Amino acid sequence: MNKEFLIQVHNRVKPYIHKTAVLSSQLINEIAGCNVFFKCENFQKMGAFKMRGAANAILNLSEEDRNKGVVTHSSGNFAQALSLAANKIGIEAYIVMPENAPQVKKNAVKGYKGHIIESESTPIAREQMAEKVKQETGATFIHPSNDDDVIHGQGTATIELLEERPQLDYIFTPVGGGGLIAGTALAAKYFSDKCKVIGGEPKNADDAYRSMKSGKIEFNKTTNTIADGLRTFLGDRNFPIIMNDVERIILVEEEEIIEAMKLIWERMKIIIEPSSAVAFAALLKEKEQFKNKDVGIIISGGNVDVSNLPF
Amino acid sequence: MNKEFLIQVHNRVKPYIHKTAVLSSQLINEIAGCNVFFKCENFQKMGAFKMRGAANAILNLSEEDRNKGVVTHSSGNFAQALSLAANKIGIEAYIVMPENAPQVKKNAVKGYKGHIIESESTPIAREQMAEKVKQETGATFIHPSNDDDVIHGQGTATIELLEERPQLDYIFTPVGGGGLIAGTALAAKYFSDKCKVIGGEPKNADDAYRSMKSGKIEFNKTTNTIADGLRTFLGDRNFPIIMNDVERIILVEEEEIIEAMKLIWERMKIIIEPSSAVAFAALLKEKEQFKNKDVGIIISGGNVDVSNLPF
Repeated sequence: MNKEFLIQVHNRVKPYIHKTAVLSSQLINEIAGCNVFFKCENFQKMGAFKMRGAANAILNLSEEDRNKGVVTHSSGNFAQALSLAANKIGIEAYIVMPENAPQVKKNAVKGYKGHIIESESTPIAREQMAEKVKQETGATFIHPSNDDDVIHGQGTATIELLEERPQLDYIFTPVGGGGLIAGTALAAKYFSDKCKVIGGEPKNADDAYRSMKSGKIEFNKTTNTIADGLRTFLGDRNFPIIMNDVERIILVEEEEIIEAMKLIWERMKIIIEPSSAVAFAALLKEKEQFKNKDVGIIISGGNVDVSNLPF
Repeated sequence: MNKEFLIQVHNRVKPYIHKTAVLSSQLINEIAGCNVFFKCENFQKMGAFKMRGAANAILNLSEEDRNKGVVTHSSGNFAQALSLAANKIGIEAYIVMPENAPQVKKNAVKGYKGHIIESESTPIAREQMAEKVKQETGATFIHPSNDDDVIHGQGTATIELLEERPQLDYIFTPVGGGGLIAGTALAAKYFSDKCKVIGGEPKNADDAYRSMKSGKIEFNKTTNTIADGLRTFLGDRNFPIIMNDVERIILVEEEEIIEAMKLIWERMKIIIEPSSAVAFAALLKEKEQFKNKDVGIIISGGNVDVSNLPF
């Protein structure tokens, strides 16, 4: 792993992604007490950073493997990302989703031409179904977060952010499955000589916080958080990177997430999903530590039902 | 009036405004059948283009007049814009608002240090109160839309848009009091040799549409529209410019406004107020006329109560 490798990743995915805008607001800076730069992955294709990792993972497959398609289990943004990336690259994507997944999420995957395979909603049932699809089609399984190519792809958001704002002292990301923060930490290490990476995590799904404390992968005791993209758990590919290269993780309460989300909606005039607000909530929670610093925040996504808001 | 004059206006207001982002979306382009470039004045300071005109109007006053302050009657974005611009420039702003104006709007003005003077809610009562404030304080009255300096200031959004996208065939704006579309038409005339300006107007507040047909200022028969920023009427300063330099006005129904607003929220992931959706709704309504063209749309503002949406 080195800078040149990550530049190649970035060049590989560039034709399939947007270089998203970096926005800032004087009022937000006054509230946070530092200079905040939002990397707007809510403006990314399909509405989230996951497009980056999905595209990189597919593009790294051999021609032969690509032709057999890809499979994943996800009912969230990665399902849409893998479907759209596969469609753009011209291959098939099989998406294992719980049979009780909301119709709106199924429709989004269908809209991007993904093939939905329903399973029971337990993690084991979903994995078994993905394995079955793999056996039957020869498709390559791509994990939403615990996959090297996915991790490297997610890091490209930070490459762009640091190109535009090389002075950043910190970058905050939300922590769910760990793919985004691991990719961010790698990119920050190779594209800045000072930028530290900090995670925001819901207190109600605090596996990464406890894992960093204990030094081994811990599991969520609850996943009762509005930040539905962050209910997943770490894996053996991303955890060592997080352990090595992430500065620390800040836990936030549910009401802090909702407050941060509303603040960004009202002040920045952009639509972000609850998971995206977690990183900003973490900054606000400990803002005295970051006074007058230059802080990047990865806005992870904007896929939210605008008819059903928490405020 | 010439290009050089408008460049001076732009240079004058630049220290007080954001150069707002221009965003586009492949999905929106597919839906509209043309290349759409959104000039995001919802990201402008205080959340709307009105900051541009307010700043220019104040900056054009003599030192002596500035020191006596400015006064306007508005309960909408211009109230906030004049308050903030005055505050930044270091003078007083007196805002005449109907006593029954929503508390949230009063708070916004107070947040920008404007002095609220309450009046009865009829247009005549508001004008009389503004006149009274003018007499008592010596403040200069600045009309929200029917004022040359305000009109010229609003045109600076189009100067920036055409600098970034010189190929535009059309620019759409919403039409309310007429300041934005008149300023846009002037800027398009002097900064492009082909770009035509088209207005979107609610059918339920169609004074500009009928005025362009009849050649004289007509008045709204109803103002029963969700696009609350567009319930105002044209004036003698902006109407001649509209008559000369605006191509035409397209009327849209209320449900078309709401649909266009939701489409922009969901696809662009940005928060816009209903008035802003009117221009895009107009484009969608007659999209066959603009097939494969390059179309700019001024997103006029993003000040909306996110807890109280029409969808």
